Amino acid sequence: MDPIYLDYNATTPVDPAVVEELLPSLKEEFGNPSSNHPYGRSAKQVVDLARSRVASLLGCDPTEIVFTSGGTESNNHALIGTALAHRGRGNHIITSEIEHPAVLNPLRWLEGQGFSVTYLPVDGSGQVDPEAVRRAITDRTVLISIMHANNEVGTVQPIAAIGAIARERGILLHTDAAQSIGKIPARVDELQVDLLSIAGHKLYAPKGIGALFVRRGVQLDSYLHGAGHEGGRRAGTENVPYIAALGKAVELAALRLETEAGKVHSLRERFHDALIRLAGDVRLNGHSVDRLPNTLNVSFAGVVGADLLARLPEIAASTGSACHDGSGELSGVLKAMGVPREQGFGAVRFSLGRLTTVDEVDRAAELVAAKVKEIRAITGGTSRETRTGLSALASCAG
Amino acid sequence: MDPIYLDYNATTPVDPAVVEELLPSLKEEFGNPSSNHPYGRSAKQVVDLARSRVASLLGCDPTEIVFTSGGTESNNHALIGTALAHRGRGNHIITSEIEHPAVLNPLRWLEGQGFSVTYLPVDGSGQVDPEAVRRAITDRTVLISIMHANNEVGTVQPIAAIGAIARERGILLHTDAAQSIGKIPARVDELQVDLLSIAGHKLYAPKGIGALFVRRGVQLDSYLHGAGHEGGRRAGTENVPYIAALGKAVELAALRLETEAGKVHSLRERFHDALIRLAGDVRLNGHSVDRLPNTLNVSFAGVVGADLLARLPEIAASTGSACHDGSGELSGVLKAMGVPREQGFGAVRFSLGRLTTVDEVDRAAELVAAKVKEIRAITGGTSRETRTGLSALASCAG
Repeated sequence: MDPIYLDYNATTPVDPAVVEELLPSLKEEFGNPSSNHPYGRSAKQVVDLARSRVASLLGCDPTEIVFTSGGTESNNHALIGTALAHRGRGNHIITSEIEHPAVLNPLRWLEGQGFSVTYLPVDGSGQVDPEAVRRAITDRTVLISIMHANNEVGTVQPIAAIGAIARERGILLHTDAAQSIGKIPARVDELQVDLLSIAGHKLYAPKGIGALFVRRGVQLDSYLHGAGHEGGRRAGTENVPYIAALGKAVELAALRLETEAGKVHSLRERFHDALIRLAGDVRLNGHSVDRLPNTLNVSFAGVVGADLLARLPEIAASTGSACHDGSGELSGVLKAMGVPREQGFGAVRFSLGRLTTVDEVDRAAELVAAKVKEIRAITGGTSRETRTGLSALASCAG
Repeated sequence: MDPIYLDYNATTPVDPAVVEELLPSLKEEFGNPSSNHPYGRSAKQVVDLARSRVASLLGCDPTEIVFTSGGTESNNHALIGTALAHRGRGNHIITSEIEHPAVLNPLRWLEGQGFSVTYLPVDGSGQVDPEAVRRAITDRTVLISIMHANNEVGTVQPIAAIGAIARERGILLHTDAAQSIGKIPARVDELQVDLLSIAGHKLYAPKGIGALFVRRGVQLDSYLHGAGHEGGRRAGTENVPYIAALGKAVELAALRLETEAGKVHSLRERFHDALIRLAGDVRLNGHSVDRLPNTLNVSFAGVVGADLLARLPEIAASTGSACHDGSGELSGVLKAMGVPREQGFGAVRFSLGRLTTVDEVDRAAELVAAKVKEIRAITGGTSRETRTGLSALASCAG
């Protein structure tokens, strides 16, 4: 039996309707959209339809959408593209301490190119204070980048308030919406953003496709240099099947947003309540209200998250630990939130999604609680003995 | 009835065996390879297998393969990544005048960053002289980038000879092998290259996947900055389905290389002969021998290529005109080869592939020849009257 999948923030399965949408472009409709013959023209129509669908979800014009290879490319393009294009005006960028590595690392690269970056702190719930953004602005500030919702704890940022400040000062605002699109509304005019990144595989499209909203009039350098695809903004033959897939996924997200968010939210609350009831001493990491409806990051007193998951092959979830490097360092997000070290290492991120069922969350809560109690019994309520081997166990993605 | 597809250099259909290979990763095996649970681990296995397959075709180690979003990203990464990493040693790069825009435009970007680029001329067949490469080398040269085979005329470059010179001088050699992989052998040790770009959609994998060979020990900056995917060399959640697809496509290419190249070559010769016989006054653009077996770029005296194709909806092919910008400018490749203007505008690129049949080339030759004679009859053998409207007709991709 497959483990219960509670790791939708890492990646989502591809919706069967999305697979259906992309198959024709993968099989018979294989033309290059740049080709001026029927094979090319039908491929171009597929791309045009998808672009309209993405624009419709965001409430923008189709010409303001650039397709990319994913959220990471969207962020690199947005940050490096605007920074380099506005270098003449200034070299200061504002961001937060809890951004995804796909924002932090392009910014570190820009620091190597002479840019100066302010990393704003967050409060205990993981939120950035818009007034702190205002105070950080200097005459040299050209760009602000604050994520829409955090991948690890799900906290939603006050983007509209930050957007109002950015507009007032004539500074570009980028938001990494990889985790929020399809989970909560994200209309670019309500958010008052100039650039917004989308990652397909977080919303039931495949890995390897994304989009970048670039408000009309915003200057940014191209990032992949080559032939004149995507209106000259992104070179590379269009990934027509996945573009079709992203268009369909976004359409589904728009249609289902309200009902799905409501369903997932109530499942998550049911799961959280069961964990408290069955395991006890469960601490929530993240904002209690301003949070993605699907995300539950909790620490179990006396338990190391990575250890818990390693002993729970029946459940697929993530720890809050630092991604990809297996270092076993405390998650930068939790550290920035001021979460105590012990609680931080106890963190487990459960993220629910479209296919999650009542039965799954009920079973998962029982399995998790039983294992938590088992570990607490062994360690006498402290996690000291299980802390070893953390680096080998650190499990995280997205 | 679908037009006869003779535009395989623009893009190829996805091989049905490749579609089969990728479907499981698109459907049930949807995990994130960075996740430390069964969903993640099975995705990682798929990526590992594909990496071995690509390495096997190129004759390199799997750790020397980085997956990318396509040929354009591979080229950007190779050129900008090595140039920036070796900036301390020098700022001079050598390339040719007939590279793809996905090489020329990253190099132009580097020129804006203080690099100096030498664009070597080619002879009438489109070949670079290795001795010209040697003469262009200075103490400041850090990188040479010469394509393996040209997309428009199919001319194959003497990469091994250039590689020997580059090694002798301790300079990195990159080759854009987007058009050659699967058509002719491309072993990195025989070619003596340090970096080599692959584009999936030119070899029966989908658009939106590529790979970059980076010889062990070669220093290059990462290009997409973010989390530590691909051994820290390329951030972004792996496009597992397409990586699987590229692996399969490369395996098929390796298995079929010799027989397929032979078959396509004889079909192309049959087509060429028929055009000469039926249309007359056909001039070959490109090298008569050192040429991709599938590519035939020809000019018909007194005929504008774009005009011919516009009047031939039964055939899907490309002109040699400049890509993507619809400018109606003479192709930079043909210009560099010294092809006279009239002949250059007459150029049509026919590129054959895996599914091309004897019947198709015979019918295509008849259709083309009949239309050529019809145009010549109208224009009295000169193309002056049909030259107008060129920009609207320019058709080219890849």
